[in-house]
Amino acid sequence: MLLGATGSIGRSALRVIAAHPDRLELVGVAAQRNWTELAAIAREFHVPHAAIEDHAAADAAVAASAFSSGTTLHRGRGGLRDLATLPVADIVLVAVVGTAGLEPALAALAVGKDLALASKEILVLAGSFVLAAARASGARLLPVDSEHAAVAQCIERQPHASVRRIVLTASGGAFRDWPVEQLARVTPADALRHPNWSMGPKITVDSATLANKGLELIEAQCLFGLRPEQCQAVLHPQSIAHCLVEFLDGTMLAQLSPPSMTFPIQRALLHPEVAKGTDAALDLGKLLSLEFRPIDEARFPLFALARRVMEAGRSAPAVYNAANEVAVAAFLGRGLPFLAISRVVDQVLGDFPHRVPASLEDVLAIDAEARRRAEIATALHA
Amino acid sequence: MLLGATGSIGRSALRVIAAHPDRLELVGVAAQRNWTELAAIAREFHVPHAAIEDHAAADAAVAASAFSSGTTLHRGRGGLRDLATLPVADIVLVAVVGTAGLEPALAALAVGKDLALASKEILVLAGSFVLAAARASGARLLPVDSEHAAVAQCIERQPHASVRRIVLTASGGAFRDWPVEQLARVTPADALRHPNWSMGPKITVDSATLANKGLELIEAQCLFGLRPEQCQAVLHPQSIAHCLVEFLDGTMLAQLSPPSMTFPIQRALLHPEVAKGTDAALDLGKLLSLEFRPIDEARFPLFALARRVMEAGRSAPAVYNAANEVAVAAFLGRGLPFLAISRVVDQVLGDFPHRVPASLEDVLAIDAEARRRAEIATALHA
Repeated sequence: MLLGATGSIGRSALRVIAAHPDRLELVGVAAQRNWTELAAIAREFHVPHAAIEDHAAADAAVAASAFSSGTTLHRGRGGLRDLATLPVADIVLVAVVGTAGLEPALAALAVGKDLALASKEILVLAGSFVLAAARASGARLLPVDSEHAAVAQCIERQPHASVRRIVLTASGGAFRDWPVEQLARVTPADALRHPNWSMGPKITVDSATLANKGLELIEAQCLFGLRPEQCQAVLHPQSIAHCLVEFLDGTMLAQLSPPSMTFPIQRALLHPEVAKGTDAALDLGKLLSLEFRPIDEARFPLFALARRVMEAGRSAPAVYNAANEVAVAAFLGRGLPFLAISRVVDQVLGDFPHRVPASLEDVLAIDAEARRRAEIATALHA
Repeated sequence: MLLGATGSIGRSALRVIAAHPDRLELVGVAAQRNWTELAAIAREFHVPHAAIEDHAAADAAVAASAFSSGTTLHRGRGGLRDLATLPVADIVLVAVVGTAGLEPALAALAVGKDLALASKEILVLAGSFVLAAARASGARLLPVDSEHAAVAQCIERQPHASVRRIVLTASGGAFRDWPVEQLARVTPADALRHPNWSMGPKITVDSATLANKGLELIEAQCLFGLRPEQCQAVLHPQSIAHCLVEFLDGTMLAQLSPPSMTFPIQRALLHPEVAKGTDAALDLGKLLSLEFRPIDEARFPLFALARRVMEAGRSAPAVYNAANEVAVAAFLGRGLPFLAISRVVDQVLGDFPHRVPASLEDVLAIDAEARRRAEIATALHA
């Protein structure tokens, strides 16, 4: 079951599924509104169930008879939830952006389906609910982010107490080597030039600010049950090593693979089986150079904020995520200066009446309130 | 139980033991002939048993009343075997050079004691006997070489079939960056300048020729049950990453630690427990640069030979080891040219009437015959 089939993670997942027809069968695909691509996928993989979140897009798909008669079309947020809980699915890969994945993810866990997580919002907003749902049903949480999949690979089957800290790697994004004083003049076009990964615009900006790494640390803390000070990051310009894990005795394991999402996706979908890879492995017949350097928090204020957010807990992760999303959208579309992104997030975080989310509805209310406040803050900084 | 207490591995092991008085108790120490240092160790650690292989050295120790009355002194090769099988010992660390460790190691395994292996000869000469003895008694084989301990850490608790290959790292030794044409003029003093590790003269020369890495590949093949083509090596000048392990899916794990033997020794002695390290861990607050490059086999003919030896099996590993030892001694002491070391080994390997060793005695006979032939070949090349 693939929720978010038409995004970049979705496309990588399709390559993994196509490479392992004996092990993986695609029984459902969902997209927000790109019905033409979704229909093409459904035809190619003979998928029995499809869902389109946007009702107008679903209407258009029906009008165009885009799907074959072998595919049942579901629609709306309820359609995504229906797909996530279909008896025919064993594992649900949630790769939809934003909060749309939250409800289907929890629904899938509630009926005991393993959850492959490629959507940051799910753990950042609702980590405690997700963990509780997985515990209650015995379902597995399988990280799909390359960094988290790497950490899982390093620590799986190791005693939890033997892990001293995990260190995620960050490419440093587009401005890793820019003089700090030029960051004030960064344009959206500058920010969208990521050195190693090909991703969507929001996450590419988050790579340049390291907000992405901050969110990943928050996720990692939740996923691996660590204290904030055990979750760290370093710059690693090559994006080959995806994490370092330091054990109590001072030894470290690093996980390495070429920067393609098929590696973590395949690990999650086939776990615990390890099968032939979809993409080629690293070539050790050529020089391989790996560099790791500490992160200059003055250059990356959103990264420094993430550390405070981990310490604060409660509603802080959800607010950080929401305020950042609004500010990045304003930077990309409405002329918010690059350096104001972190100022907006800092201000919204500081002013927010933080609380422990009482329910999933409360999480969404916190998210909405943080967005409202971020819009106001964005207008002030624009 | 520490056999080879006065060598460089022995000294590192003593630091590990001293750092974990709650977990490790030293119940016996052995040395070849350095009785003054051995007696000092026995007094410092209140060791109840000591053994000196050399009879004259044992006599001198007795005459000097070097050991306290609380320490029982054993002597000769039989003394080492006695120590290795004492009921009070749980684990025997064999760090003696040469074939002297072979008999005590097998004796320890026969009575079910875990064996921490820091002596290459044991697996290279008698791998099949060692594995059979461990299987029969259920004793564990715990590698102490930094590379093998690193591989064990990467693959422990992983399905054997998921490992595609292991790649040991080699610093490249003293002549890594010398022009090939200058290698003919290498002196023993040149060869003994190892860039990263502080070790004995024989192993430092073996690092410069990569014979050491060749022997390690042969050991690894035996220890981890791999095919020859699954055992590879790369140059890694920094000696921080000790191995890379590639899994079937194309992901890799690397094990990293500062170049100190206390890391692998502690892992072996406390296994499976992971406790606070004896030495400081890597500092990620500073730039860390790791480089990996393919090995130029033309520059390192002894490394290329090791691959042939792995393929050939039977008596070839023992012959390779013996001929190399004789040739290195001749290089260090009797003017054998540096480049003749590999020629001697190649010639002895090629001419030897290879066979499957029938017994431990046969292994020692093969070793002796190879040494005899190597002496002759050395005289021809000097």
